[in-house]
Amino acid sequence: MSLIKSVLEGNRLSISRLLSQVENNSPESHAVLAELFPHTGKAHLIGVTGAPGTGKSSLVNQLALHYRKSDASRKKIAIIAVDPSSPFTGGAVLGDRVRMRDLSGDDCVFIRSMASRGSLGGIAQTTASFTQVFDAAGFEIIIIETVGAGQSEVDIARLAHTTIVVEAPGLGDDIQAIKAGILEIADVIVINKADRPGVEVTERALRSTLELAHPTKRVVRHHGKNMSTGDYSITQTDTNKIIWIPPINKTVATEGKGIAELAESIAKHADHLRQSGDWAARDRARLVSELDALIREDLMSRFLENIPQAKYDEVVEKVLNRDLSPYEAIKFLVNLTSTALPQGERDDGK
Amino acid sequence: MSLIKSVLEGNRLSISRLLSQVENNSPESHAVLAELFPHTGKAHLIGVTGAPGTGKSSLVNQLALHYRKSDASRKKIAIIAVDPSSPFTGGAVLGDRVRMRDLSGDDCVFIRSMASRGSLGGIAQTTASFTQVFDAAGFEIIIIETVGAGQSEVDIARLAHTTIVVEAPGLGDDIQAIKAGILEIADVIVINKADRPGVEVTERALRSTLELAHPTKRVVRHHGKNMSTGDYSITQTDTNKIIWIPPINKTVATEGKGIAELAESIAKHADHLRQSGDWAARDRARLVSELDALIREDLMSRFLENIPQAKYDEVVEKVLNRDLSPYEAIKFLVNLTSTALPQGERDDGK
Repeated sequence: MSLIKSVLEGNRLSISRLLSQVENNSPESHAVLAELFPHTGKAHLIGVTGAPGTGKSSLVNQLALHYRKSDASRKKIAIIAVDPSSPFTGGAVLGDRVRMRDLSGDDCVFIRSMASRGSLGGIAQTTASFTQVFDAAGFEIIIIETVGAGQSEVDIARLAHTTIVVEAPGLGDDIQAIKAGILEIADVIVINKADRPGVEVTERALRSTLELAHPTKRVVRHHGKNMSTGDYSITQTDTNKIIWIPPINKTVATEGKGIAELAESIAKHADHLRQSGDWAARDRARLVSELDALIREDLMSRFLENIPQAKYDEVVEKVLNRDLSPYEAIKFLVNLTSTALPQGERDDGK
Repeated sequence: MSLIKSVLEGNRLSISRLLSQVENNSPESHAVLAELFPHTGKAHLIGVTGAPGTGKSSLVNQLALHYRKSDASRKKIAIIAVDPSSPFTGGAVLGDRVRMRDLSGDDCVFIRSMASRGSLGGIAQTTASFTQVFDAAGFEIIIIETVGAGQSEVDIARLAHTTIVVEAPGLGDDIQAIKAGILEIADVIVINKADRPGVEVTERALRSTLELAHPTKRVVRHHGKNMSTGDYSITQTDTNKIIWIPPINKTVATEGKGIAELAESIAKHADHLRQSGDWAARDRARLVSELDALIREDLMSRFLENIPQAKYDEVVEKVLNRDLSPYEAIKFLVNLTSTALPQGERDDGK
């Protein structure tokens, strides 16, 4: 049986094998991904991000357990853990081992850590490809968990349909500054470790930052028609555009508290996306961004093929000696390839 | 007087103006940067990174104050704070305001926050250009502080001559996983907030992770000639290559404790870099990485100029409808430009 067919049937061994090929960016994997692509577009992609120490991994585990246990939705779930520690050591492997305890033995949950080797574009690209593999293999919920709180993690998480930002009480001073930025991308906010002291302070801070981050929504809230229910509010503006105001969920992941409510917030957000047309908009944004990254990689590798190594090294040497500025160097190198290309892809010294 | 001349003379207003031009990626700024470039290469670049909540900003402030106050080295210091919250809201501005309190009024300290707008490549590129401006303007120490703990922040910080990784006791569970990765790039490790409980545990964990991250050095420590002094060790191996083992400094930045010792570690690392030849190696790595980023940007903008928007949108639509996979789409688009280019940079429908 072909690899493609067995992946489409959800064979775990085949999926594993393909993911490894994708991670190594093997040329064969490109062909397989192209074949799988028509079968994608069905999964709900959930991004989970937040600063270290917020307990993201436990939360993701509990969420997966909830989806598996609740009678209403025995869905197939994939978890992609993007782990920034892995370029260096075995962080990803360790992560898997710890998480296996709760979810091992369940054939419908697939956890895969991703070593964030290579360039940032590479991480985003591999994440996109992983997502496509799971999507084609029939996983209905794909959780992309990014460890860390940097721009790259945010960029990866925001490409999901639903982005969950996890916070926790009492996490130091400069977290506050990060919150404003990270909240802007949040569809659902979670205060995890909500049994800790300071949870009210955190919630108050989040609410005021949220109003800062969504100033239009704040105005709307006062002047528009507010159909708020509890923590929840979908607001209708004059332009008939339905606006989503991120709910704040409180959880204690280690005890499984608040997980059902979080799952409900996520489901409501999915409904909102479908009703508002934002589901398609997010699909488009994700694919455009993937195309962009692929084009950049392709252009760069073509460029390097067309520059003789000796020539490149010579230019680098000139820059190091401050004989040439970086901008001048680029102009020189790029002109070299564009004059070389029409004459049969060789540098003829012109 | 020209902008270039007044920047070279260290005029603060001119520097400010140029930095804004650089941040907006204005074409004029490229020309100015090219003119300034021959005057660069003198500054000691210090990268400071670590997870949120470790007190990095206070540490950087105290370090700058120390350099200014200590009689031995009244150096000109620039601080570039790369702030991931800023693409969305005024995180950078807030940061500046808070920090002004201690360092304002000192003409030889220049603090500039950088909104991390646009792509990640953009952040790295702007950081590199900022560094060159300060370097040319005679700032002897340039501290690049990255808020956050993601891959991008690590990538930016590691391009410095000396990379300082800041930790703090008791910062939650999944920080441990990040440490291993981040320690690999550390030249100097700081345990800030060292008056907190759990500092011994943190130090022990760091030391064992450090041995994991530098397995060769661990062997060397036992078999080589160890010229250790206190926390400090420079080890000579058989191959005559001097190996640097990152010292662990303990600080309480808010009280100024341990800052002088940290400055000493940094100075020793600078000496080590010069003696071992690694200073030039790091300069080379930084410039090569800058060239790489510039080439990618240049290729991409040329590519987009050569693709008619309608054609591009058509391809995106096909991908959205799953009629074309991303890899097939790229192949199609790139072929379009490479056939179009030789005939005068226009798509002639061929």
